[in-house]
Amino acid sequence: MENVLKGYLEGITSVNKEFMVEAQAYVDSLVKPPTSLGRLEDFAVTLAGITGELKGDYKKRASIICCSDNGVAPEGVTSVGQEFTATQTVNMIKGITGAYVLNKAVGADLLVVDLGVMADLTAYPEIYHRKISYGTNNIKYGPAMTREQCLQGVITGIEMVKTAIDKGYKILGTGEVGMGNTTTAAALAAVLCDMPPAKTVGKGAGLSDEAYLNKIAIVEQAISVNKPDASDPIDVIAKVGGYDIAAMTGIFIGAAYYKIPVIVDGVISISAALSAVRLNPLVRDYLLPSHRSFEQGYVVMSAELDLQPIFDTNFRLGEATGCPMAFNFVDLAVAMLDMATLVDAGTPDNYVDNVFDYSFEDKRNK
Amino acid sequence: MENVLKGYLEGITSVNKEFMVEAQAYVDSLVKPPTSLGRLEDFAVTLAGITGELKGDYKKRASIICCSDNGVAPEGVTSVGQEFTATQTVNMIKGITGAYVLNKAVGADLLVVDLGVMADLTAYPEIYHRKISYGTNNIKYGPAMTREQCLQGVITGIEMVKTAIDKGYKILGTGEVGMGNTTTAAALAAVLCDMPPAKTVGKGAGLSDEAYLNKIAIVEQAISVNKPDASDPIDVIAKVGGYDIAAMTGIFIGAAYYKIPVIVDGVISISAALSAVRLNPLVRDYLLPSHRSFEQGYVVMSAELDLQPIFDTNFRLGEATGCPMAFNFVDLAVAMLDMATLVDAGTPDNYVDNVFDYSFEDKRNK
Repeated sequence: MENVLKGYLEGITSVNKEFMVEAQAYVDSLVKPPTSLGRLEDFAVTLAGITGELKGDYKKRASIICCSDNGVAPEGVTSVGQEFTATQTVNMIKGITGAYVLNKAVGADLLVVDLGVMADLTAYPEIYHRKISYGTNNIKYGPAMTREQCLQGVITGIEMVKTAIDKGYKILGTGEVGMGNTTTAAALAAVLCDMPPAKTVGKGAGLSDEAYLNKIAIVEQAISVNKPDASDPIDVIAKVGGYDIAAMTGIFIGAAYYKIPVIVDGVISISAALSAVRLNPLVRDYLLPSHRSFEQGYVVMSAELDLQPIFDTNFRLGEATGCPMAFNFVDLAVAMLDMATLVDAGTPDNYVDNVFDYSFEDKRNK
Repeated sequence: MENVLKGYLEGITSVNKEFMVEAQAYVDSLVKPPTSLGRLEDFAVTLAGITGELKGDYKKRASIICCSDNGVAPEGVTSVGQEFTATQTVNMIKGITGAYVLNKAVGADLLVVDLGVMADLTAYPEIYHRKISYGTNNIKYGPAMTREQCLQGVITGIEMVKTAIDKGYKILGTGEVGMGNTTTAAALAAVLCDMPPAKTVGKGAGLSDEAYLNKIAIVEQAISVNKPDASDPIDVIAKVGGYDIAAMTGIFIGAAYYKIPVIVDGVISISAALSAVRLNPLVRDYLLPSHRSFEQGYVVMSAELDLQPIFDTNFRLGEATGCPMAFNFVDLAVAMLDMATLVDAGTPDNYVDNVFDYSFEDKRNK
């Protein structure tokens, strides 16, 4: 499997930067001062670079939800019982979760994948059954999984992108269900960003101060016991990550490989995005940001990726609940291109000159 | 007209705070940790308080664009010529501006109002013709308008809300076109927040450093020449504001009077929102925030109103370009209510207990 992943990683090519320059020039020609629609312009140009189309059609969309249990969950790092992973995975296909109703509101389907839920979910045919094992091992005492299991998770994520593209989806969101996964994401952040766990561990969806200190101690122990090799993201995910993160890492790799835009959600999602970018830096340009997660690990990894969030919504639910806002923003970025150009808008001659010469600080990316 | 405005102001009643408590309790019962959908929960509860409905229908929506010229525009405070106010007002009904295409993308109509454009626009029947005069006077040398003209502008805004409601609109956005109106908004911010103009003047849609210092000096002079009475917002708008700000102030008052939610857009919009709240503090609870404007005056007034923006998009175009994102967020807030409750979702018994007892810092408003 090592070679299969290597093949995908080597198959990734850069976004089309020449076309991005053309796209930015077109956006600059619209009836507004250059860069005055800020991040919306960034989205339009990024989408152009990924797909090679100035005005693509992204209405057929899905968020892929990676579901898996984490062996560390019973260590008091979650506010709810581990069995809630299975319950909430099933609730995703029942259409009653936050991720479901919010994605549905923007026309996005959910593709729910069981990577390692500690329950037999085969009674639910709507779930993509890709179970690697019934949960991971407890990272406090040893590796979460074997290297082979990690590679299987990553490749499953890549293959899910192919499956989604075959079903006609033009843009993807990412999300997860897995009690304990803010702990594994914090461990990844600490290792990949070379930061102390106290700077990367957050309070998850709700945790007391005492439980929070315990969570930091567990991440510290997990790292000291497992000694993950920061230069080898597969080793890091295998030792202190989870199947959900492995699969999401694969989704980001697959998105770059197949050239489809993909949205980063919260702290779990961004830990996978960072892992993918470490495996091949070209992945970075295929990522679209969403909301600023409440978790401090998000902020650390967002800075590391230079991927600034857009929505300041105080969300800390996970599940892909941030993706719908980014889907909406994609719609607005496409709609922006319907503006008239400065010339067509009957702009006074001095406008074009003044505006293009203006010395206001240029805030566009790069 | 003084008495007409007084009648409206005295007719404003509080949002339904009892029902907001009920609405928050329902939101807390959904299958997620309390407050974990952050600002989306705030929106749902605010909407419930305004309309008295837990799950309202806000699909019929419009942004009201207040268009007017400012006598101060030729003082070098704008990056484009004053004649662009008329051009861009007409472009709004032609459907080629940023505000038009972005609002259209979220199903929002534009109601374009001419309060004081320096051109005869009567050839365009789609415009609401409410011209008070052909532009205001230059605030650098005297008052922008008379008190009567200001009251006429405010009452026009209130009446536009009634017109919109009669047309079936359930939620309103606000926007403007008016070269020079970041200067008047900065003057309002300085007076109403008792801040030096250097802290409230921004660079508008694009201005050189030299022009920026000139803009500050003009606002300083406008305030020292006119001596507006900070305790009398009508006096402040009449002396250093504009017809667009007067009308938008009326829109916020009208929204509270008629109990319809209204979105604050950028720096011009929030200067009107602050004026309205100073006229009757009950208006505050009818306001929904949108994006963080690039203008520093926005930040000052946002803090003064305790109205925190949600979208970090680096927009500095104005026109109501921020409202579409807030309309989208309203849709998501309504969709959130389709989540199952904790009990219906088959949540383990310990979940409800744990989650409701959790000691994570409570981030909800108030």
